[in-house]
Amino acid sequence: MKYSIGIDIGGTNTVLGLVNNQGVVIAKDTMLTKDDNSNWDDFFKRLFQKVGELTELYPDLEPSGIGIGAPNGSHYSGMILDPPNLNMGNVHVPTIALEYTRLTVVLTNDANAAVLGEKMFGKAQNMTDFVLITLGTGLGSGIIANGKLLAGHDGFAGEMGHIIIETEGRECNCGKKGCLEMYVSAKGITETVIDLQKEFPDDPLINSLIDDASQNGELGYIDGRILDIAFDKKNETAYKIYSYTAEKLGLGLAQVATLLEPEAFIFYGGVSKAGNRMLDGAERALNNNLMSFQKGKIKLLLSGLPPGDAGILGAASLVFNAL
Amino acid sequence: MKYSIGIDIGGTNTVLGLVNNQGVVIAKDTMLTKDDNSNWDDFFKRLFQKVGELTELYPDLEPSGIGIGAPNGSHYSGMILDPPNLNMGNVHVPTIALEYTRLTVVLTNDANAAVLGEKMFGKAQNMTDFVLITLGTGLGSGIIANGKLLAGHDGFAGEMGHIIIETEGRECNCGKKGCLEMYVSAKGITETVIDLQKEFPDDPLINSLIDDASQNGELGYIDGRILDIAFDKKNETAYKIYSYTAEKLGLGLAQVATLLEPEAFIFYGGVSKAGNRMLDGAERALNNNLMSFQKGKIKLLLSGLPPGDAGILGAASLVFNAL
Repeated sequence: MKYSIGIDIGGTNTVLGLVNNQGVVIAKDTMLTKDDNSNWDDFFKRLFQKVGELTELYPDLEPSGIGIGAPNGSHYSGMILDPPNLNMGNVHVPTIALEYTRLTVVLTNDANAAVLGEKMFGKAQNMTDFVLITLGTGLGSGIIANGKLLAGHDGFAGEMGHIIIETEGRECNCGKKGCLEMYVSAKGITETVIDLQKEFPDDPLINSLIDDASQNGELGYIDGRILDIAFDKKNETAYKIYSYTAEKLGLGLAQVATLLEPEAFIFYGGVSKAGNRMLDGAERALNNNLMSFQKGKIKLLLSGLPPGDAGILGAASLVFNAL
Repeated sequence: MKYSIGIDIGGTNTVLGLVNNQGVVIAKDTMLTKDDNSNWDDFFKRLFQKVGELTELYPDLEPSGIGIGAPNGSHYSGMILDPPNLNMGNVHVPTIALEYTRLTVVLTNDANAAVLGEKMFGKAQNMTDFVLITLGTGLGSGIIANGKLLAGHDGFAGEMGHIIIETEGRECNCGKKGCLEMYVSAKGITETVIDLQKEFPDDPLINSLIDDASQNGELGYIDGRILDIAFDKKNETAYKIYSYTAEKLGLGLAQVATLLEPEAFIFYGGVSKAGNRMLDGAERALNNNLMSFQKGKIKLLLSGLPPGDAGILGAASLVFNAL
């Protein structure tokens, strides 16, 4: 049995775990990514203190390395490039890690970590060509082609959230218009609900979704669980929201499938809990937008990894894959 | 030195050549793909007669295999699936080839053959991640990722001509709307010229392009050479046509780059002779549609292979790659 430390750096929390090469999370811990001193020096000091505490609990299980998944983490350069939600600037992970550990440290971005985890421990163990899509605040993706991670020339491939699915569509933070993420993600669905409110100002579901997401006059992201419950009670507005989202998702999947022809798209993350409420419609839209010889062949699946653990499993699998 | 036979099956002509592993075409020959008896049995009978004649000229140079690039040729199954322009149905190439040869026969589609040729003999010899785009009647593409051909789950990946770049855009033969190929290819540019004629019925360049392309009352594809000459004489309509085409191409490149982050896009085929008349504008449009950290990094290059030989070089390289 081999062991590694998987670390999943998120916008709010960072989760770390001691994982074996069967995909069992033996122990895990969590910490805030940003505390009062929001800089990388402080972050890594706190992180390696936690890593030390975790490994001291299991002195017999020697980890063979540390895998880190981080937003904007580059597989090749070892750099984390100023993730938008953190405002902590750039950091070269191998350099800073050397202050604390002599273990090999492997970095990639969060979506790549997730796709590797799915390949090693999830539903894609026998797949050589698939795409993992993380549906959370935004939409991330990782690509396996010919059995290997498709990292691209600089390590930043797989930005499926930013393919354009509507000419002159919604404005995205990235500067472009009509990006898939602006329709299919917590952010995207919230935009859809805001648009619908203009059209149907008295719709009870829309108003309750927006009330629930508002705090101190600021609108956060709508809660998918409320939407799911309404859908299951056959609420027409909930149907409308999911069918619109599914249509856009299917269009995006078709763009990717036309290029990559994967065996499956696998969905992970909070918004993917909508499951078939969204995926049935997405599959129809996908097939409507494929050429005849590609229709009906591509599977849409939910991740086989436990929701709370996929990030650390994926990060840990970086070590098993690399060594 | 190793030798192989490269065969490039096209919509009109089929070209075959004896090629060495330095990319030298030692001898080549050509034949009509369709004669009066348009079926695969007849085609392969004529083809292998030509192959025999070619190899008999060089009895000392023993080819180690035969590589075939064909429209809708599958890398995995060895099937050619009823290419739209031929109307000859399906054929299983290894089975039919066995009637004529004991050499290994390797099949792929025409765009994949071209991308492998570029990797082995052209400008991409040191690249591990790039996309080759063939601009002819349509738009084809082949993808190299992690140094290998990205064939997809069924061998039909790389259909970049059919990614959608305009919601509700021009109708494509494939059944979808707004496919890249309907804007950027001989077919696409012809559509653009037809659209412009409606707007500017008296424009001399537009009318001469359409007159030239018309035969017996039927409109074929406009001749890019006339367009290039007009562009070089600073004709404003020619500028307009190329800048419109470049804008659409750049949008398509950006979709692909967002997913794959290649080192370069390499252009091959008749329409690519437009060169920088089109590629300068396409590069600007590409960068305008990329996220900041991908901007300015991706090269647009013209193929390094001789125009007439790339098809057979690519097909021949299948053998050197496979064996």
